[in-house]
Amino acid sequence: MKKIVLGIDIGGTNTVCGLVEKSGNILFKEQIPTFGHESADSLVNRLAEKVDFFSEDHPEIELEGIGVGAPNGNHYNGVIQDPPNLSWGHVDMVSLLREKFNCDVSLTNDANAAALGEKYFGIAKDMNDFIMITLGTGLGSGIFSGGNMIYGHDSMAGEIGHLSIDHNGRNCPCGLKGCLEMYASAKGIKETVIELLKINPGNDFLSSIELDFVDGKMFDRAVDDGVESAISVYEFTAEKLAYGLAQAAMILSPEAFIFYGGFSLAGDRLFNPTRKAFESYLMKNLKGRISILQSGLPPGQAGILGAASLIWHPTLNRIN
Amino acid sequence: MKKIVLGIDIGGTNTVCGLVEKSGNILFKEQIPTFGHESADSLVNRLAEKVDFFSEDHPEIELEGIGVGAPNGNHYNGVIQDPPNLSWGHVDMVSLLREKFNCDVSLTNDANAAALGEKYFGIAKDMNDFIMITLGTGLGSGIFSGGNMIYGHDSMAGEIGHLSIDHNGRNCPCGLKGCLEMYASAKGIKETVIELLKINPGNDFLSSIELDFVDGKMFDRAVDDGVESAISVYEFTAEKLAYGLAQAAMILSPEAFIFYGGFSLAGDRLFNPTRKAFESYLMKNLKGRISILQSGLPPGQAGILGAASLIWHPTLNRIN
Repeated sequence: MKKIVLGIDIGGTNTVCGLVEKSGNILFKEQIPTFGHESADSLVNRLAEKVDFFSEDHPEIELEGIGVGAPNGNHYNGVIQDPPNLSWGHVDMVSLLREKFNCDVSLTNDANAAALGEKYFGIAKDMNDFIMITLGTGLGSGIFSGGNMIYGHDSMAGEIGHLSIDHNGRNCPCGLKGCLEMYASAKGIKETVIELLKINPGNDFLSSIELDFVDGKMFDRAVDDGVESAISVYEFTAEKLAYGLAQAAMILSPEAFIFYGGFSLAGDRLFNPTRKAFESYLMKNLKGRISILQSGLPPGQAGILGAASLIWHPTLNRIN
Repeated sequence: MKKIVLGIDIGGTNTVCGLVEKSGNILFKEQIPTFGHESADSLVNRLAEKVDFFSEDHPEIELEGIGVGAPNGNHYNGVIQDPPNLSWGHVDMVSLLREKFNCDVSLTNDANAAALGEKYFGIAKDMNDFIMITLGTGLGSGIFSGGNMIYGHDSMAGEIGHLSIDHNGRNCPCGLKGCLEMYASAKGIKETVIELLKINPGNDFLSSIELDFVDGKMFDRAVDDGVESAISVYEFTAEKLAYGLAQAAMILSPEAFIFYGGFSLAGDRLFNPTRKAFESYLMKNLKGRISILQSGLPPGQAGILGAASLIWHPTLNRIN
């Protein structure tokens, strides 16, 4: 028999699932719509169908367990707590999956899953202290320190996206002001573009941006073409991001920040100005010691690999 | 034989040493001047004399090891790195003490030592996730997360005193702007008083403060007497402190912040306004879940107890 783990990465729109060997080899991977307006049971049933379908042709596989990454996934109690963009309220996802599949199940939040993916299958393999930053619609983070995932007393740690970088800054839907993700993420870039358009309403590039679907690739192309307003947006974003990262660095002194997600594909267009500003915001004894890196994991894989590693590499700290 | 550990708490002015049993019972405790202008060898020799003197009358004790807390003490390599207020540069304190005493020696920084003291002998005994804040001349911090001390990749983690709470804030001697300790510490209160005196030069209470020796007890008495300018200083300090703590809370989600050191003796005079502002700066899912507490350890003991616990409770993560 070939032991495999089902890794599930639940997102607001789509859910990716994959059958993952201990080596990180993915035997099978598929994306299905999450349908957040339907019940969580519906998603669980559709996932079970996918696994059954694959198993029919592969009698040699044996399901060792299921790992799940989800927004607001609580590692300690197995509950997805009132996830944004999903109408589920509180869902005990670990119990639901355990009943359906009758196997070991473990849950964490989506950014923590990405960090686990990087730790066990990516460039953080040899790092004990690093911070994974997922740059997409929002800014998520998963923290390893001393070789352990940082969960805090209630599994709520790692909210670097809600570090306030300005006491009187932009309003965040979370109710706070100046949250880092209101500057460094698709949401944040949208706000920056709106502010710049007020000052410069005739700007061709800025006017052409579809604000509800800010597209990193469009920015990247514009930056490569030397479009000044695009470069300004990245420089402003980098400056804010750097200030936020520096605060996290002062607390955790990681070896590296590792970026994943749509906007991380900007690469050095965004990271070079970030590195420069980041150094200026660090204490002397931290300067030049912390790397800002881009994940090498393929888009869409960090989540399922990391979710699977909840089973392949269970931690001593697990309570559920 | 009675096994004991020598706990040493090195400060800018004085060094406290104590012979500590595993239970936390302190057999002997003494304070000697650090004499930071002399060599570190001189301090080591004077400490050895104290231990010899005590041992002569107590042939039953057996030195199990030595734990040291010191400003800029690096747990990983045993070096005190260019400590402020001491003219030592880099000193390999672990090697110095090992040669002199021929026993196991371990070093950490002073705030981490206080956190260890609280974990093993104070109110954090049953906590896996808490942040110790030492409020004195500056603001130090030691972090436990998931039951482990957070050191970061180079033992430099835990610099909450240098979180920047204002991009354009007060200049800190560390070279950064807006560091939390420039607001919430004796140094910070001095700056606040100077700023208030510019607006209100005739204020009796503020004018009476000796700026280079800001005295917490004097403030406490004035607050108890209803002196408005003293209350304002504490409220301003609490507001800034709360904002900084909230940022650390978002990253680490601790069960509690525990305060130690001279200014922590203000107690609820300072902590009540801090709690109120702190809650307002937290994300919804963290509100009401994190306590702000005062250490119950006697002044001057957390450091030596914590230093001793480096030997009594060695961690798996120790590299040196």
